[in-house]
Amino acid sequence: MRILILGGDGYLGWSTAMYFSSLGHDISVIDNNARRDICKANDISFLFDAPKLAERSNIWKSISGSDVKVAMGDLQDWDFISKVVSSFRPEAVIHYAEQPSAPYSMMNRDTAAYTLQNNVMGTLNMIHAVNEHVPDAHIIKLGTMGEYGTPNIEIEEGWLDIEHKGRQGRFLFPRQAGSLYHTSKILDTDLLWFYVRTWGLKVTDLMQGPVYGIHTDQSRLDDRLLPLFNYDEIFGTVINRFIVQAACGYPLTVYGKGEQRRGFLNILDTLACVGLALENPAESGTLRIYNQFTEVFSVNQLAEKIASVGKQVGLDVKIDQIENPRVEAEEHFYQPVHTGLLSLGLEPHLLTDDAMAGMIETVLRHKSNIVEEQIFRGVNWKPSRGPSELKAVH
Amino acid sequence: MRILILGGDGYLGWSTAMYFSSLGHDISVIDNNARRDICKANDISFLFDAPKLAERSNIWKSISGSDVKVAMGDLQDWDFISKVVSSFRPEAVIHYAEQPSAPYSMMNRDTAAYTLQNNVMGTLNMIHAVNEHVPDAHIIKLGTMGEYGTPNIEIEEGWLDIEHKGRQGRFLFPRQAGSLYHTSKILDTDLLWFYVRTWGLKVTDLMQGPVYGIHTDQSRLDDRLLPLFNYDEIFGTVINRFIVQAACGYPLTVYGKGEQRRGFLNILDTLACVGLALENPAESGTLRIYNQFTEVFSVNQLAEKIASVGKQVGLDVKIDQIENPRVEAEEHFYQPVHTGLLSLGLEPHLLTDDAMAGMIETVLRHKSNIVEEQIFRGVNWKPSRGPSELKAVH
Repeated sequence: MRILILGGDGYLGWSTAMYFSSLGHDISVIDNNARRDICKANDISFLFDAPKLAERSNIWKSISGSDVKVAMGDLQDWDFISKVVSSFRPEAVIHYAEQPSAPYSMMNRDTAAYTLQNNVMGTLNMIHAVNEHVPDAHIIKLGTMGEYGTPNIEIEEGWLDIEHKGRQGRFLFPRQAGSLYHTSKILDTDLLWFYVRTWGLKVTDLMQGPVYGIHTDQSRLDDRLLPLFNYDEIFGTVINRFIVQAACGYPLTVYGKGEQRRGFLNILDTLACVGLALENPAESGTLRIYNQFTEVFSVNQLAEKIASVGKQVGLDVKIDQIENPRVEAEEHFYQPVHTGLLSLGLEPHLLTDDAMAGMIETVLRHKSNIVEEQIFRGVNWKPSRGPSELKAVH
Repeated sequence: MRILILGGDGYLGWSTAMYFSSLGHDISVIDNNARRDICKANDISFLFDAPKLAERSNIWKSISGSDVKVAMGDLQDWDFISKVVSSFRPEAVIHYAEQPSAPYSMMNRDTAAYTLQNNVMGTLNMIHAVNEHVPDAHIIKLGTMGEYGTPNIEIEEGWLDIEHKGRQGRFLFPRQAGSLYHTSKILDTDLLWFYVRTWGLKVTDLMQGPVYGIHTDQSRLDDRLLPLFNYDEIFGTVINRFIVQAACGYPLTVYGKGEQRRGFLNILDTLACVGLALENPAESGTLRIYNQFTEVFSVNQLAEKIASVGKQVGLDVKIDQIENPRVEAEEHFYQPVHTGLLSLGLEPHLLTDDAMAGMIETVLRHKSNIVEEQIFRGVNWKPSRGPSELKAVH
């Protein structure tokens, strides 16, 4: 199958490209180099010295014998994406090309505008390019569980049947996110739902939880194939970051009460879920939504698990509870449904002691790359009013 | 009160500026001239030769003695809007600066991108400018009833209490709009709701139905104060357009079955509603939503009413039922609540025969400005796939 991956340089994008390439699919990837540029501009290092995308594609070819075509360019550039789609004619488009950091989106006006611009205008172009050139292609969009926020009712998979004053309707499950980044993904969902209804597109929207993990079967072949891996507070997802903090002796930083609960998954399950979506495409005129995670943990549980495994492998892991820089519920009801992907055949990789110990071992091998002072960045959800008003408003 | 009006050159923006100026408020307006530029580029004329904004401000001053400060610039230009807000320090911001045409947003990729860019990025800048410089200012945002679409349940005022599996939550009323323009306003609402929760802003979001009418008390003082008034299929709202079509002998164009029902209001009630919101500001940390319309009509009812009044004043008004170029339900349940503004004291101006006859009379006085071939534009909701696929998909 011809598969176009948007954001093919990223943690998930590159891993996905190799995965589907190894399965014999015809893969093209695009990327605008934004993650590397933003990290460079903000003094953020990666754990691995991942070669540039074109170079990694060459390395992958030399090892696997398979092509991953690379086009560097911006999804916001209509001429670029229109040409890529019209010439490659993908049967599926996997859309990872989003600015994925909540703290980055909350730093200031410029980072907020960049996030919204990149994510929403990029998604609009993707939709128009597919509709214009390959309207039967299956769009697989990465959403986020964060779109739902932490409502007081059970979170269904994307949709909610509502009875109101004796009448019924089926609607998008109400969404209310905790950062501008997460809100930008709500806007993406709104856009997709509008164009699905109007143009009859085929879309699967995967509401993904925070992903953890390092290796995939493909990156095990050569360290140069390891993904862009962040361990800082801006781009590092919590489990990956805690693993690195444990490995380098930096206390695990729990925000506030630490009872924030989220659904997590291993990067291997991201690949499996996207694969299941691909093998079971959405129907025309359908926005199919799955909640993509395998286990729910609180931040306290994660910290305790990682501290415990750290101790087993001889590390002295401390846990620090710090003032919460975010505006979020620190104790809340959280019960999201996640049966759709399991019913398609997902076999979860759970957050076992072995999984965590394996990650710690890999991180320790690359420990010299860790720059400790880059871990904590102090991004506050209320930057422009200063601390006194911050307290006054809440 | 210091009131900043965004989009002060438009049909509603300029009428609002004069209205609050006449009540003694200190008014600043900004505008990027987009409506005039887009209309010029697309061969769309206005019914009245409204002088440029700065000139109208001078005329208004010479007649009323009151200042309306004008700054020409784009809400998307952060430096511009940041300076305007920090120097004027408004106590209220009224946000009309949106591309408001559904057909324009559906013409092609470029007009879709322009709409999303202007509306969503503009709203983001407005929010950031208020939060940074005047966080206690009351934001009055014009949304649209079209955000809700035509659901099968009663449309509450912005919010819905949901009981699900024995638990309760209160959420934004589910939204699913019928055009990209209307969807862009859903995205605005999502943005406002996020920042209200996070930063404690004061926001009133007015879900307005299609507005009709020409004169306000202020524009009656001098024809040069009449608003930008569109009668074309792109920017002309249905009642205004039908009135012009009736006046010039162009058949009233009903799309499909004509049983599409919407909530309408007179421009005088727009001013009154915004005034009521201003006098009764939202609390900090509150997104207050009103459904802003006074009467529900189907398109068939409007056509029949206007044909009937036209005949009373001696016009021969025909009604043509044409194939619906939009993707929309042509028969549907529609029962929106609209008690909030009435309870604040709104006294509606209804769509009486006198009101329609008065509009027809004004249009007839300016009949020589009507360019008939500009009325129908044939914008199809599915432009890029051609008619055969259009039918196949539905």
